[in-house]
Amino acid sequence: MKVMKIPDALTGAIRQAESVLIVTHVSPDGDALGSSLALARALVAMGKRVSLLNKDPVPRIYRFLPGWQDVSAQLPDAAEGTEPDALILLDCGELERTGFGTLPGRVKLVVDHHLTERSYGDIRWVRPEMSSTGEMVYSLIRALGAEIDTETALCLYTAIFTDTGGFRYSSSTPSSFRAAADLVELGVKPWSVTENVYESISPARMKLMGMAINGMRFHGDVAVIVVTRDMYSETGTTDEDTENFANLARSVQGVEVAVFIRQTGPESFKVSMRSKGRVNVAAIAETIRGGGHHNAAGGKMDGTLAEVEERIVTALTNARCDSQS
Amino acid sequence: MKVMKIPDALTGAIRQAESVLIVTHVSPDGDALGSSLALARALVAMGKRVSLLNKDPVPRIYRFLPGWQDVSAQLPDAAEGTEPDALILLDCGELERTGFGTLPGRVKLVVDHHLTERSYGDIRWVRPEMSSTGEMVYSLIRALGAEIDTETALCLYTAIFTDTGGFRYSSSTPSSFRAAADLVELGVKPWSVTENVYESISPARMKLMGMAINGMRFHGDVAVIVVTRDMYSETGTTDEDTENFANLARSVQGVEVAVFIRQTGPESFKVSMRSKGRVNVAAIAETIRGGGHHNAAGGKMDGTLAEVEERIVTALTNARCDSQS
Repeated sequence: MKVMKIPDALTGAIRQAESVLIVTHVSPDGDALGSSLALARALVAMGKRVSLLNKDPVPRIYRFLPGWQDVSAQLPDAAEGTEPDALILLDCGELERTGFGTLPGRVKLVVDHHLTERSYGDIRWVRPEMSSTGEMVYSLIRALGAEIDTETALCLYTAIFTDTGGFRYSSSTPSSFRAAADLVELGVKPWSVTENVYESISPARMKLMGMAINGMRFHGDVAVIVVTRDMYSETGTTDEDTENFANLARSVQGVEVAVFIRQTGPESFKVSMRSKGRVNVAAIAETIRGGGHHNAAGGKMDGTLAEVEERIVTALTNARCDSQS
Repeated sequence: MKVMKIPDALTGAIRQAESVLIVTHVSPDGDALGSSLALARALVAMGKRVSLLNKDPVPRIYRFLPGWQDVSAQLPDAAEGTEPDALILLDCGELERTGFGTLPGRVKLVVDHHLTERSYGDIRWVRPEMSSTGEMVYSLIRALGAEIDTETALCLYTAIFTDTGGFRYSSSTPSSFRAAADLVELGVKPWSVTENVYESISPARMKLMGMAINGMRFHGDVAVIVVTRDMYSETGTTDEDTENFANLARSVQGVEVAVFIRQTGPESFKVSMRSKGRVNVAAIAETIRGGGHHNAAGGKMDGTLAEVEERIVTALTNARCDSQS
């Protein structure tokens, strides 16, 4: 594996710290949790005291990651007023994304692969070209010379695996594949990670998926998939069970934009859009109290379902015409 | 990448051959086609005359592979009676799997990662521990010193990608990840392969999938998913559109065995079984005019749908009791 250049100041600050607080972003995903847990294990193996903090609970599908129970929602030692030697923000580059107003730490470090304009922290290692924070943490742990046991490898693999969509997105770089090779060599079982992350669908969620697919409709190359509150109550599901529904609609041949509309109130809806590239859905999202990226964005709309659907489809169709003219 | 030991006799025979016939198995999959097309390109780049032969047409989803149109269903030059210097059987180790009764070739070579008891061929390179024939062909092309352009890399990547279930199965070995890293470096776009292989579902197939999911039922930890002839005609689909339906049922939390029953006649059905490991479905398959592996097997059953479902579920439930006693 090509060795990644890691700032000496970063490894130096981590080496010096005896106590470390690791914090990641709200609604933590596989990369946030996997890289946090891996770094925590490695630092503990180096003899440091480590605390893990997250505003939100660990989602059920990530509760196979070794050590997930150690992630606390409360600042440790807050009552005693002790400050950790180092704070490490992982997979996010600004305080706001952690959901905390302030965080203790004599030195504040940032390790992230997201592009941000903020400059929070004393030492920032931000590499948007990396597949995942997990891949960065893998390099960091190696640079620190800490042990990588099978459990640490599993956390790192899961981080890389989930952030590359299971090695499917364009973020699946040569170095992400090489890291995966190393981690499998260290004992990770790829099928077991797949099973935990992608093959543990609850029967209720599967039922909801079937209903949603059955109701899928097409307006030219715009596919619309809908989940109403009636569907939640009929299947015994919640909002959490609709993950990836927008991707389901996008995976249909000939679909350029997928729209996932889910009901949040009698006449209010959340709208998520996925584009295959030709339509900038972020621009549409801005008109519906939302935002996002060129290919993935969302917002909120009010009205009846029929009205909401008609308005968003029209907006997307017009956006196409604009970009073609 | 660790260099794989390739028999000198194999590389020697290929180097000597001026004309080569490449044949793979019936119902060719991504590995069969990807490795065949990659090897053909490499051999053409070495100045050889190459023909590609397959009993079955190239499935639609693989028609993004460069050169797929060159795969012929007819023996080339048969009328002239000329025999190629070398026949290479790829991704299968016996004549029977090709669907042809006899195949020409002054020397007959086999490159395969499936375990077979047959000993067809003059030189056999069979490595069941390899992820895919694609990975073997990648090593072979490197050993031959032939050029690997982006198109060849795309064929090899697709071969490895599809046979590891998109780097999800336990066959996702360190060396398969390292090969993927190299191939992405050579210009392969992982997302584009994903899109072609997994994200080009026809609207009709998606509709069938929704109907099948809606009808999914559970008997203890056995999940049953059914497709009837009525469902085909209602959605305008065929047997080809049911790929991976058994996996859909297996992906439900708590399911140990997934059964996919599809109707082939008024009272006749094909039955596919997928086990997560605790039940040997091959043993059940043998009782229903079929066969397979421990975790994936199938066969044929006659009767009404209700009868067939009851019999197979009972057999699977008893199999569990046997293995526990």
